[in-house]
Amino acid sequence: MLPTPKRFTLVAAGAEGPTSLNAFDHALLAAGVGNLNLIRVSSILPPGAEEVERLEVPPGSLLPIAYGSFTSEEPGTQVAAAVAVGLSRDSFGVIMEFGGRCSRDEAEAEVRRRVEEAFRHRGIPLVAVRAIAAEHRVERVGCAFAGCALWY
Amino acid sequence: MLPTPKRFTLVAAGAEGPTSLNAFDHALLAAGVGNLNLIRVSSILPPGAEEVERLEVPPGSLLPIAYGSFTSEEPGTQVAAAVAVGLSRDSFGVIMEFGGRCSRDEAEAEVRRRVEEAFRHRGIPLVAVRAIAAEHRVERVGCAFAGCALWY
Amino acid sequence: MLPTPKRFTLVAAGAEGPTSLNAFDHALLAAGVGNLNLIRVSSILPPGAEEVERLEVPPGSLLPIAYGSFTSEEPGTQVAAAVAVGLSRDSFGVIMEFGGRCSRDEAEAEVRRRVEEAFRHRGIPLVAVRAIAAEHRVERVGCAFAGCALWY
Repeated sequence: MLPTPKRFTLVAAGAEGPTSLNAFDHALLAAGVGNLNLIRVSSILPPGAEEVERLEVPPGSLLPIAYGSFTSEEPGTQVAAAVAVGLSRDSFGVIMEFGGRCSRDEAEAEVRRRVEEAFRHRGIPLVAVRAIAAEHRVERVGCAFAGCALWY
Repeated sequence: MLPTPKRFTLVAAGAEGPTSLNAFDHALLAAGVGNLNLIRVSSILPPGAEEVERLEVPPGSLLPIAYGSFTSEEPGTQVAAAVAVGLSRDSFGVIMEFGGRCSRDEAEAEVRRRVEEAFRHRGIPLVAVRAIAAEHRVERVGCAFAGCALWY
Repeated sequence: MLPTPKRFTLVAAGAEGPTSLNAFDHALLAAGVGNLNLIRVSSILPPGAEEVERLEVPPGSLLPIAYGSFTSEEPGTQVAAAVAVGLSRDSFGVIMEFGGRCSRDEAEAEVRRRVEEAFRHRGIPLVAVRAIAAEHRVERVGCAFAGCALWY
């Protein structure tokens, strides 16, 4: 088995860059995950995983992460990304992500709705939701990013 | 090295949801992989990997999986997804996936053709093909999903 | 923790295929990574990772890799992909990738610019850049692929 993550940290930021990939890179850096090897996962919080405010992993590490992002090359556009983690009483949680042309509040409301739906559909009581979001007004090329890093 | 998977399980399902991400989540649940952290891989069956009908991994586990999926927000559309695993005599296998607007049978035929081509191109005799497919008629937002989970 | 890679190998190739996925598969094979389970990462060279010219991992292994690719179904189109690794004096490096409708040289110039920007933005001196690129003229369905495989 690949080892199951034991901790999670919510991160989010927006940034500009000269290209889409650089804007994404800058947003990752601003969010505190720019010097890691992100492995995108879809997207369950392991049972017992504990929230830790500050991610502490060495540069270059392979980091499982559920994330939403949105990049735009249209100056003036507002982009946002959000991620929400739904927590159950004593079982796994569900992570939902989103990125799009909207405000931070709209992005966060969207992921909260998705988490509520995920719990309703599973028939599990939703005990709490942890969420984070970021927005960014594009100057030339901009990116908003929000993620739930899963670590050990 | 990351550990090389030793088992594989074919899964597929279609589902509705209020958003694309929820429809995808519901399809994963219906397919039996909804409470796991999917890591998408591209897409070789390790030598000696054994097919197991029922996936048995704890919720929240990191699960390598090759998959195809297709989501549509057009009511009435038929969506389908399929995955096929081509098996060789005594070496690795090749996994091919597909998702699109078509029937289950068309999706399965497509992945079978892709596996045949993959073996022809490698010059390896194709001994057997294992395939699975799902279709779904979209009501509002629908998703078809098919995957080959690789586990231990 | 997932183990942090210790070696890297640059690979690139272009290829034809009857479908997009097969063209991608053929490009991977031509690049020497076609019989592995690619896990796409985003995209940091771990500190101390050493370049090795030839990738030596068993078929079916899970292989972290940062890559760019571009597939086209328009006959006559030139597609290209490139990846560049920026190296620092004694810390981690940054990997940038690209795929698009252009020449090999244009793709390589693009990833070099992205690496330079990534170092400028981080405020780290860029000591050297290692890059690789491939181009392909599409006959029916063609793919260009370039990656930085991270292994152990």
